[in-house]
Amino acid sequence: MTTTAPTFIVILIEPKYSGNIGAVARTMMNFNIHQLYLVNPCPLDDECYARAKHATKILDNATIFPTFQDAIKTLDYIVATSSIQYISDKKHLRNPLTVEEFSEKIQEAHGTIGLLFGREDYGLFNEEIAAADIMIKIPTDPTYLSLNLSHSVAVILYSLYLHQKNVIKKRRTIGPTEKQQLHSFFTQLLEEINYPKHKKDNTELLFKRLMGRAIPSTWEYHTLMGVFSKTIEKLRNNKKS
Amino acid sequence: MTTTAPTFIVILIEPKYSGNIGAVARTMMNFNIHQLYLVNPCPLDDECYARAKHATKILDNATIFPTFQDAIKTLDYIVATSSIQYISDKKHLRNPLTVEEFSEKIQEAHGTIGLLFGREDYGLFNEEIAAADIMIKIPTDPTYLSLNLSHSVAVILYSLYLHQKNVIKKRRTIGPTEKQQLHSFFTQLLEEINYPKHKKDNTELLFKRLMGRAIPSTWEYHTLMGVFSKTIEKLRNNKKS
Repeated sequence: MTTTAPTFIVILIEPKYSGNIGAVARTMMNFNIHQLYLVNPCPLDDECYARAKHATKILDNATIFPTFQDAIKTLDYIVATSSIQYISDKKHLRNPLTVEEFSEKIQEAHGTIGLLFGREDYGLFNEEIAAADIMIKIPTDPTYLSLNLSHSVAVILYSLYLHQKNVIKKRRTIGPTEKQQLHSFFTQLLEEINYPKHKKDNTELLFKRLMGRAIPSTWEYHTLMGVFSKTIEKLRNNKKS
Repeated sequence: MTTTAPTFIVILIEPKYSGNIGAVARTMMNFNIHQLYLVNPCPLDDECYARAKHATKILDNATIFPTFQDAIKTLDYIVATSSIQYISDKKHLRNPLTVEEFSEKIQEAHGTIGLLFGREDYGLFNEEIAAADIMIKIPTDPTYLSLNLSHSVAVILYSLYLHQKNVIKKRRTIGPTEKQQLHSFFTQLLEEINYPKHKKDNTELLFKRLMGRAIPSTWEYHTLMGVFSKTIEKLRNNKKS
């Protein structure tokens, strides 16, 4: 099996201003990313096409989804973007990567990477953020954190574009099935040790984020799974005896 | 005289679309640059102020010049921004800096640095480019080199912001003691589950590398340690009973 570079998809969640969608399409083409998903967007009107300039094909080929859940079904990694303030408001979302850290690390991943961008006014909702494997932030001045939507996309795609050129050797990393298995084993472990119920969700999310940042190779995956399954087995056997 | 950080001024040459000027003002405030020079601009209308969002002060305080020569009189350095194609068309402008090189180097400069951005349609004229001390380029995909004006500004100001000292607030990540503790707990876990001796070293190294890539925060560290210690404790208690 050959290792390929990750495929990036820009996902705009309920964009309100058609001009922003057009501007996003243009910057996508500037930085060589061509797949656009739109969740419940405003109509793609003339303003949208005008702002896209030579990137109208990206608009024509954009996939429109009625809900967030529909849009993320086929993704291998979900990446949520946010301002610093927004993140610090939501306790369970601590420890985001900077754009630079993300751009460097993600080159090692493979599969389909969805880059989520929230609403112009309300950003991403909690359940959308909770679905993300990786949180990234764009550092901005504390006096004005909120970037224009297409500016956020431009900065992140620019950074990804820079780092793509520097890709060295790629490891074989795990896909979505293995990722799910890893999360499921961690959950089983928490159950076996009677982990406090009120902390469980946050700790599962923490593990998901840790693994999201570490991007395990298939070899690392199999080894980790070995440790998990032995641990769980032993906890269960001991209980029986 | 003390050496101070350079002062940056964004200079738009004959911008045609007022929305672009507003968007530029907004991104300037996001990245903490407040001085805007406009050379023979279109009128700053409602669209311009709407796009500026909370950065209307930058528009109010913008200095308008009738000609390019008037605008550059007081500058210590003039920096021209351009796409690659544009540069290669103009023989005398070879060897531009990348945005990253520029952002790093310019921090050592002091005085007033003017960042020139050309017309939406024709970019910068030859005499404007000839006046520049430094040429920079934003790398873009060869199929579509031309960035939206405010996107060019956003990418460059973002990069400058990153390179300014003390800007990227480090996450509170674990130090060497915590790292050792984490590794030691993992080793104890391996012992409790009678992990095969011949695999132990490699698996410990794997865990170390995973954590090395994930760079846990102190909060993540404490949560992980909680899971580890509960697991180890339970394995030991079961053994005794």
